[in-house]
Amino acid sequence: MQIGLLTGGGDCPGLNAAIRAVVKRGLGEYGHSIIGFRNGWKGVVNGDLVPLTRDKIRNTLPEGGTILGTARYHPTKENGGIDAVMQVLEQERIEALICIGGDGTLHAASEVAAAGVKIVAIPKTIDNDVWGTDQSIGYHTAVNIATEAIDRIHTTAESHNRVMVVEVMGRTAGWIAVNAGIAGGAEIVLAPEEPFDMDRIVRFLTHRHRSHASFSIIVVAEGAQAVAGSSFEYTTETGKYGEIIGGAVGAAVSHEIAARTGFDTRLTVLGHVQRGGSPTPTDRILGSRFGVAAVDAIVAGKSDVMTALIGEHVELVSLQDIAGKVKTVPTELLQVARALA
Amino acid sequence: MQIGLLTGGGDCPGLNAAIRAVVKRGLGEYGHSIIGFRNGWKGVVNGDLVPLTRDKIRNTLPEGGTILGTARYHPTKENGGIDAVMQVLEQERIEALICIGGDGTLHAASEVAAAGVKIVAIPKTIDNDVWGTDQSIGYHTAVNIATEAIDRIHTTAESHNRVMVVEVMGRTAGWIAVNAGIAGGAEIVLAPEEPFDMDRIVRFLTHRHRSHASFSIIVVAEGAQAVAGSSFEYTTETGKYGEIIGGAVGAAVSHEIAARTGFDTRLTVLGHVQRGGSPTPTDRILGSRFGVAAVDAIVAGKSDVMTALIGEHVELVSLQDIAGKVKTVPTELLQVARALA
Amino acid sequence: MQIGLLTGGGDCPGLNAAIRAVVKRGLGEYGHSIIGFRNGWKGVVNGDLVPLTRDKIRNTLPEGGTILGTARYHPTKENGGIDAVMQVLEQERIEALICIGGDGTLHAASEVAAAGVKIVAIPKTIDNDVWGTDQSIGYHTAVNIATEAIDRIHTTAESHNRVMVVEVMGRTAGWIAVNAGIAGGAEIVLAPEEPFDMDRIVRFLTHRHRSHASFSIIVVAEGAQAVAGSSFEYTTETGKYGEIIGGAVGAAVSHEIAARTGFDTRLTVLGHVQRGGSPTPTDRILGSRFGVAAVDAIVAGKSDVMTALIGEHVELVSLQDIAGKVKTVPTELLQVARALA
Amino acid sequence: MQIGLLTGGGDCPGLNAAIRAVVKRGLGEYGHSIIGFRNGWKGVVNGDLVPLTRDKIRNTLPEGGTILGTARYHPTKENGGIDAVMQVLEQERIEALICIGGDGTLHAASEVAAAGVKIVAIPKTIDNDVWGTDQSIGYHTAVNIATEAIDRIHTTAESHNRVMVVEVMGRTAGWIAVNAGIAGGAEIVLAPEEPFDMDRIVRFLTHRHRSHASFSIIVVAEGAQAVAGSSFEYTTETGKYGEIIGGAVGAAVSHEIAARTGFDTRLTVLGHVQRGGSPTPTDRILGSRFGVAAVDAIVAGKSDVMTALIGEHVELVSLQDIAGKVKTVPTELLQVARALA
Repeated sequence: MQIGLLTGGGDCPGLNAAIRAVVKRGLGEYGHSIIGFRNGWKGVVNGDLVPLTRDKIRNTLPEGGTILGTARYHPTKENGGIDAVMQVLEQERIEALICIGGDGTLHAASEVAAAGVKIVAIPKTIDNDVWGTDQSIGYHTAVNIATEAIDRIHTTAESHNRVMVVEVMGRTAGWIAVNAGIAGGAEIVLAPEEPFDMDRIVRFLTHRHRSHASFSIIVVAEGAQAVAGSSFEYTTETGKYGEIIGGAVGAAVSHEIAARTGFDTRLTVLGHVQRGGSPTPTDRILGSRFGVAAVDAIVAGKSDVMTALIGEHVELVSLQDIAGKVKTVPTELLQVARALA
Repeated sequence: MQIGLLTGGGDCPGLNAAIRAVVKRGLGEYGHSIIGFRNGWKGVVNGDLVPLTRDKIRNTLPEGGTILGTARYHPTKENGGIDAVMQVLEQERIEALICIGGDGTLHAASEVAAAGVKIVAIPKTIDNDVWGTDQSIGYHTAVNIATEAIDRIHTTAESHNRVMVVEVMGRTAGWIAVNAGIAGGAEIVLAPEEPFDMDRIVRFLTHRHRSHASFSIIVVAEGAQAVAGSSFEYTTETGKYGEIIGGAVGAAVSHEIAARTGFDTRLTVLGHVQRGGSPTPTDRILGSRFGVAAVDAIVAGKSDVMTALIGEHVELVSLQDIAGKVKTVPTELLQVARALA
Repeated sequence: MQIGLLTGGGDCPGLNAAIRAVVKRGLGEYGHSIIGFRNGWKGVVNGDLVPLTRDKIRNTLPEGGTILGTARYHPTKENGGIDAVMQVLEQERIEALICIGGDGTLHAASEVAAAGVKIVAIPKTIDNDVWGTDQSIGYHTAVNIATEAIDRIHTTAESHNRVMVVEVMGRTAGWIAVNAGIAGGAEIVLAPEEPFDMDRIVRFLTHRHRSHASFSIIVVAEGAQAVAGSSFEYTTETGKYGEIIGGAVGAAVSHEIAARTGFDTRLTVLGHVQRGGSPTPTDRILGSRFGVAAVDAIVAGKSDVMTALIGEHVELVSLQDIAGKVKTVPTELLQVARALA
Repeated sequence: MQIGLLTGGGDCPGLNAAIRAVVKRGLGEYGHSIIGFRNGWKGVVNGDLVPLTRDKIRNTLPEGGTILGTARYHPTKENGGIDAVMQVLEQERIEALICIGGDGTLHAASEVAAAGVKIVAIPKTIDNDVWGTDQSIGYHTAVNIATEAIDRIHTTAESHNRVMVVEVMGRTAGWIAVNAGIAGGAEIVLAPEEPFDMDRIVRFLTHRHRSHASFSIIVVAEGAQAVAGSSFEYTTETGKYGEIIGGAVGAAVSHEIAARTGFDTRLTVLGHVQRGGSPTPTDRILGSRFGVAAVDAIVAGKSDVMTALIGEHVELVSLQDIAGKVKTVPTELLQVARALA
């Protein structure tokens, strides 16, 4: 059997661990051929492929990024995209496809599966907002990098009596912000799950700095929003700070705090460093388990499913069940972040 | 209310995160006093205590070890130990006790609870073999350290065409060995869960080095044992290598491989570095969540329970339910380790 | 004898190593009292001091920041500032002063020395632009952090075929940019030492991306400037991009490249993370050696001098000799950066 | 021109940075062909070579080990070894040779140069004992790894009131021990430069643990020796502990301390992890500068020289001048280690 393999969407650490596991399990254990497509769905449509041998995956386990390349391209949004996919797969005699990706890639996978292709998906996203799995590839490394940055900012905050605002990734869910906030000992965490009230933040900071501490660290997810109708008009879509380049919500929060409290306030936007570098052992193990499970699923005749970590076990969930859903941070964890401020 | 707090058994990263969370939640949120006992149960018996203020926990989140000190001392194994515990608690008007520890500490906690003391336990052990919780404090950091070591040993193995044996901790369960083995890309993982067959190992290595690779990495848990009756007589208790100082099983395996294959074989015993250093974000978060949950449990009137991570949630499990049980590595994970060799 | 000690200017990793060494050498070896002033010169002027005992320096060696606090305050720029310094030192019977700081602090130290106070200075600055010493405290750690960030950005650049611009610190000298650029394998490094020509940069990138590579990494020091009269008008003082908040030159370069080449171009401004976190062993050793040497210099009756690393040796240089000079990156190193593009 | 390139002796981090720089400078700047020999001098003798293209060095800068492989093989110690070298070089029309290696490789290089081959050497050794250069490739990374291990061991030492002995590499010189000892805050450092007196060590520990601290960290270089005629007979050659497997001197010191003081004493032998993993930025920069300088030296017609870091500059030193000399740790640094105990 020939099994196709692609990585789609934004790159992140742990993708190579999954690719390596697919090859080791598929080729080494079952003797199937693994055909890699370059740059996500674009490579499928264009027939841009490379047979994945043991040589190709040597020493890739600790490497970030993806040896297959990736692109934000959705065949289902292009005219004739699905037909092109079907044609290339048939022509290359590829009987099943393993797709590693986030929301967009998983959505495309489901539509291609509906057209009759055997598909197993593997979830990756540093935002960790894919429904149906406790963790997606890349997320754990991102939390580590963000925590390390907060650790570093801590000493400057304290030595200079400053309010330090750190903007991290997370558009629809605050997984990185909440977890790195707890791990880094942040005083305030702003996540998309709970619109924030700038008046309360200002009161909290004023009280804290007057009573027992002279510095604070605030972690802001890029998708955090102010409560509707509050005195602070900022939203990610519009608002008075809308035109600031990059780090929009972080800059807005930082300016507002400085203006209202008079405290020396500084902003750090972590940006792209969050999705790079060597994967943590956790992401390498997750990628490895997902890769093995995906091949086993293909061999067992499964399709239209996604590998998922549920508690300590890797299971398969239906791609249709997770479509359109967003996994947000549970209330208990948001409360822990608040309790430890 | 006054709540006592102690850390028992071997030290590990993440203990201070739990201590800090207990103080922040207990003192900051509920206004209860938190009384720390020094050096585990020994401090309870001797009345060696220190009130834990916000000042005491400043900047401790990223620190390894425990600010309370620890000792391997079991009050239930001493004459009059439990009486001494009861007397000190009464005298100091301590109404409840939070015990952070491994097997020994948890066992003592259960017996003290049976004597009428309100007790909530928090599991910690780098071996991760405490039943009832997906993870214990300290384990995640140990896997990271072991993986990092394997990464480093990899380049030497490859550049010099060697068999590198790495002995890691894990007496009754192979959690560190299996996970660090997968994350580090080890060819062979020897864990207590599955007695190993030296004849098969020698055949595997000989075949591998003859056919396509000239180096191998073998991760050995300190509790790994040879299959009964095999040609390789070594067991952790006795056997011809029994007198070698430290790194017993690793040294035995290393010598045997060198003798039988003729390959250049080297041993590294990771030892104490596995339980030290700054905790990973995951261990900081786990410690923080367990600390908050333990205080909440005390406040809710619970006793004889342990905080546990089950999937994505922190729950309470009965100390009596987990007594005498060992959490071993599930078969699926052992298979992934084998599949990726 | 009583010896005063202060840390001035921006905080950085390695300051605590120097403080610890001053206490261990001064108190432990010679039996002198070490009096710490809080928040730099401000603490001297205000008589805000703390006797430094062995207890105060416990476990501070691996910690970033400064346990004494710091502030950007220059007594010589205030009316009666020097008089206030003299009065407090006399009142507290402090016979000599060890000042750890950058340009501003060293300048103040020299003026206070001129007023008759015995002073030995220790250089610290992550920019590494203090004349007379091969390295200043904090610089080595900053290069490590910047390199780690470039490593992380590399995988994203490659997986997505992007131009990644990374802005690092360095107003008057490009030490961080050049060294992290070489260590991270950057294609282009822009440093204050050599005004850059945007036309050449655009030509280089266009050629590179057309011929053999599809991504590039550009490291920009915050003090880098375009050549006078070039088509790209940006300077750090004024210019069309002058109003962009933070990361001014990085943003300008990034926008210009995107506009002229059409390549997908992204900016990361490292900012405050560069001056935080645990010091590298090199910075801990440098701080330790400088601390020991400063005390030895005081004991030997030296004044108006600075400890300096020259080759493998720590020596003393005159504060007056280094005043007004800036240590820039030597041509050889700039050439290595270019040679490896 | 065709330039040969080899890496000999033990592998270490930073070799690939030097290889990459040789290719980028030699091929990219001057258009010369760079021919890599596999596994050190063995590859020269056997004509086992590979032309090094830009493709071969892609993404190798942050990788440990050597892409060329290495071996401990000395052509000058074999019958006809030098003749074989000359013949292969002539046959392959290689006009000059760049040799990266330690003592053994440099010695061979000098002899081959004497036979008429144009040779430029680059020093590498984690022991840092090559005469004539402030630093050799690999040493800086080893100090970092050893310091990190000491940091980790610190928390266990303190939490459990133990004496922790850490054995690090360094046969003829104690560079790693002394520097990691200072950076990690060790109480005692035993280096080959100064034979140690076990009676004094025991007195120091007994006093320290009685008066103000309950734990100690001792760093031992593998080449450390007891003073002649002392009560502790151990030497690295013979002695009563001579048969202990691996970590000989560390085990001896550890046992002796435990026996004489009664303190809970534990040994960690760092071993092979010290020479693996990703090179520090300092080693990447050093390797890069040496690689560029070596090619420039070849182009300038130099031979029988070695690239050397002297202060801030890379210079060339004569291979004959450094032969037979060992660079040991200067007294000042040994004193700093003692002063900070």
